Amino acid sequence: MTEPAGKGPLAGITVVDLTRVLAGPYCTMMLRDLGARVIKVERPETGDDARAIGPFVNGESAYFVSLNRGKESVALDLKEARDREIFDALLERADVLVENYRPGTMERLGYGWGALHERFPRLIYAAVSGFGHTGPYRERPAYDLVVQAMGGIMSLTGEPGGAPTRVGTSMGDITAGMFTCAGINAALYERAQTGRGQKVDVAMLDSQVAILENAIARLQASGEVPGPIGSRHPSITPFDRFATSDGALVIAAGNDALFTKLCRVIERPDLGHDPRFESNALRTENESALKVEIEDTTRTQPTAHWLDGLAEAGVPCGAIQNVAQVLEDPQIVARNMVVSVEDPALGGFRVAGNPIKYSDHEDPLQRPGSPALDADREALLSELGLGDDRD
Amino acid sequence: MTEPAGKGPLAGITVVDLTRVLAGPYCTMMLRDLGARVIKVERPETGDDARAIGPFVNGESAYFVSLNRGKESVALDLKEARDREIFDALLERADVLVENYRPGTMERLGYGWGALHERFPRLIYAAVSGFGHTGPYRERPAYDLVVQAMGGIMSLTGEPGGAPTRVGTSMGDITAGMFTCAGINAALYERAQTGRGQKVDVAMLDSQVAILENAIARLQASGEVPGPIGSRHPSITPFDRFATSDGALVIAAGNDALFTKLCRVIERPDLGHDPRFESNALRTENESALKVEIEDTTRTQPTAHWLDGLAEAGVPCGAIQNVAQVLEDPQIVARNMVVSVEDPALGGFRVAGNPIKYSDHEDPLQRPGSPALDADREALLSELGLGDDRD
Repeated sequence: MTEPAGKGPLAGITVVDLTRVLAGPYCTMMLRDLGARVIKVERPETGDDARAIGPFVNGESAYFVSLNRGKESVALDLKEARDREIFDALLERADVLVENYRPGTMERLGYGWGALHERFPRLIYAAVSGFGHTGPYRERPAYDLVVQAMGGIMSLTGEPGGAPTRVGTSMGDITAGMFTCAGINAALYERAQTGRGQKVDVAMLDSQVAILENAIARLQASGEVPGPIGSRHPSITPFDRFATSDGALVIAAGNDALFTKLCRVIERPDLGHDPRFESNALRTENESALKVEIEDTTRTQPTAHWLDGLAEAGVPCGAIQNVAQVLEDPQIVARNMVVSVEDPALGGFRVAGNPIKYSDHEDPLQRPGSPALDADREALLSELGLGDDRD
Repeated sequence: MTEPAGKGPLAGITVVDLTRVLAGPYCTMMLRDLGARVIKVERPETGDDARAIGPFVNGESAYFVSLNRGKESVALDLKEARDREIFDALLERADVLVENYRPGTMERLGYGWGALHERFPRLIYAAVSGFGHTGPYRERPAYDLVVQAMGGIMSLTGEPGGAPTRVGTSMGDITAGMFTCAGINAALYERAQTGRGQKVDVAMLDSQVAILENAIARLQASGEVPGPIGSRHPSITPFDRFATSDGALVIAAGNDALFTKLCRVIERPDLGHDPRFESNALRTENESALKVEIEDTTRTQPTAHWLDGLAEAGVPCGAIQNVAQVLEDPQIVARNMVVSVEDPALGGFRVAGNPIKYSDHEDPLQRPGSPALDADREALLSELGLGDDRD
C-alpha cells in the first residue's frame, strides 16, 4: 500500500475516488497532496481509462502516473453484490466520495445522492461532470476541447484575425478539478460545524465561464464581442511578447512608472515623452505603433541582455520558457514544483509539485508512486475486516 | 454595508482582504461566493488598483465590479497609528487574512507571519504572490503575462510552427487565486480540528507549473520538447477544430467507439475501415491526413447540421462560442453561471456566477454589488466599538 496516512491539512480524511481520466483525478490528486487518503475504485480489467492514454514509458502510461501519485487502488464492479459490499464498507469509513460519471449513472447503480445521504449522512459527495447535474445539456458527453469551445476561452485565444485556439493544456478539465477541490474543502469545513455532508456539483462548462475574467465586462462596456488578440492584454499596454535578436521575451509594464523605467532600460526616452504614449489608455489606443517602436530596439540585442536590464530596473518581464526550461528554472526548482515519483516501470519520474505551501506541513521532493490496478485490494479488505475473496 | 453575513459553507467566516487587482481578489471572490464575509482593506485615496483598470462604464471600472461583488470596503493606511488600531481590531475578529503584496512588505509593516501568528494564533494567513515567499526570484514583480511565459503554457499554446501565445484570459492570476482558495479552505478544516492557524504561500509561477498536465510527461517519454499544436490534442485523435460550410466546430472522439459513431454521422464509413485510422495511436500518427478527410465532409454542411447529428449520436462536440453566445447559452443560463450585480453606475451588470453548486445552499441569480472605496467604514468602526474618526 502506498502510504495510506497522509500529512497535511486534510490528514485523517478518507476519499473514495470513482473518477477517471483528468478532471476528477486532478481534484483527488490535490486532495492527496493536501494530506487526504485517496482510495481509487477502478473498473476491473481495464481500470481508469487514463491507464490507456499516452505518453507511454516501458508500456506504462506516464499520463496516469502524473495524476495518481500516492493513491491506493482497488478494482470493483459496482454491479456485483460482493463488490458492492466492499464499496459500502468503504463508504461507511469515507469522508468524501468523488465521481465524474455522466449524471444519472450513480442513480442507476443505487448510489444517487438521495440514497447516499440517507445511508451516510456525514459523507460529502462531489460530482464533476461536463455540463453539471442540472440543465438541458446535463446528459451530453464532454471532453476538454468541447467545453473550451463552448465556454468562450477559445474565442479569446490565438493571433488577432486568426482562428480560435485551444489553450495548450486541458484547462477545461483542470479548472473543474480545482473548483471541485475548493468546494469539497469548504464542505469539510462546514461539516466540522454541523456534522452533515452535502452534495457538491461542478461542471466543466461552468468552470470555463468562471475564468472568462474581463471578457464579460468588456462585452457589456463596449458592445463589441472580444476576439483573440495574440499575447497582448486588452487594456494594459505595453504588456506583450516582443522580438529580440535571438528570440523573444515578454514585458508587462502595467503602469506609468513601469513604462518610464522600461523606456530608460531600452534607452528610448523619446517614447516616454511621446504624446501618443502618455497614459495607459493612450498606449492601449496606440498599441501597435508602440509595439513597432519597442521592437525596433529590442531586436538589436539578445533576450538575456534585456531580461537582465529589465529585472534590475524592476520591470516585470520574463523569458518564454519551454517545458524543458521550466523543469530547470531555479525558482521553480527552489519551490519544489518539480517532484519525483518512484515507479517500477518509469524509474524516478518527474511530475509537477503541489503549489499550495503550508507553514505547518512539509513539501517533500519525493512522492509516492501511482498504484497498479487493484494493488491495494488485499490490504484494504483486511483493513475492512472482509478477508480476501479472490485468493 | 453589502450583506455582511454570507450564506454557504463558509458562513460565519470573516476574511480580511488586503489584495489588489486580480489573483487575490479572485480568491476572496470565491471565498465570498462560498459564504464568507470579506472586508476589503484598501489604500486611502486610490484604493485597489483595479478601480483604475478598464473597461469603464459611466466612469466606473467594470473590471473591479466583476471581481469584488458582495465585499465590504474600508480604506486604511497601515503606516498610520489610528488605522493600524482599526486593522488590529479587524484581525482580532478575523479567521483569514489574504494579501498579494510582494514578499517582505507585510514584515516591513509589522504584520509578518511570525508577528501575526504570535498575536492571532487562530488566524490563517494566505499570501499569493508572483514567485512565492521563498526562492531566488521571490522579490521580483510579476504580472499574469510574465508567469504565463516563464511557466511554459505559452510555449504550448498557438498554431503549429507559430509564435507562443498567451492564453486569452489571465490564467496566471486566476489559477493562483483558485489554489489559494482551496488551500485556505483546507486550512480552515484543519483549524477546526486543532484550533491553530497557519500560513499558506501560493505563487503564480508555481500555479502555472501545476497546470502543465501531460506536457511534463511527454517531454520525459519522448525527449522532445512539446510545442504549440493548434487546437488538437497531443495524443487523442480526432480531437480538434474542424471547418464547416459556415464556420467551424470542435469534435472530440476520444475512443474507437466514438470514432465509429463519428464516421457514421458524417457518412464516411470508409474512414472507419481505413487501416491508417484503425486505432487511436494510428489516428494520432496520421492526424493531418485524417483531418483533411474529415474536413472534406464537414465543409459541405453548416455547423448546426453537424452539431445536431453528432449530439444525437452521442459524439462529444461543440460550437466555438464567442462571449456573447456564452452569455445566452441555455445550459450556462440554466446553471446560473451568468448572474447580475446591482451597481449604481452600471445598472444590472452581468458577471460570471459561482461554479461550485451545493445541495445545502442557494445559488442566487442576483448578487450584491461591489463597494465604493471606504463605503463600510462607519458601520465597521461602530461594529468594532471604535467610533468614527473622520466625521
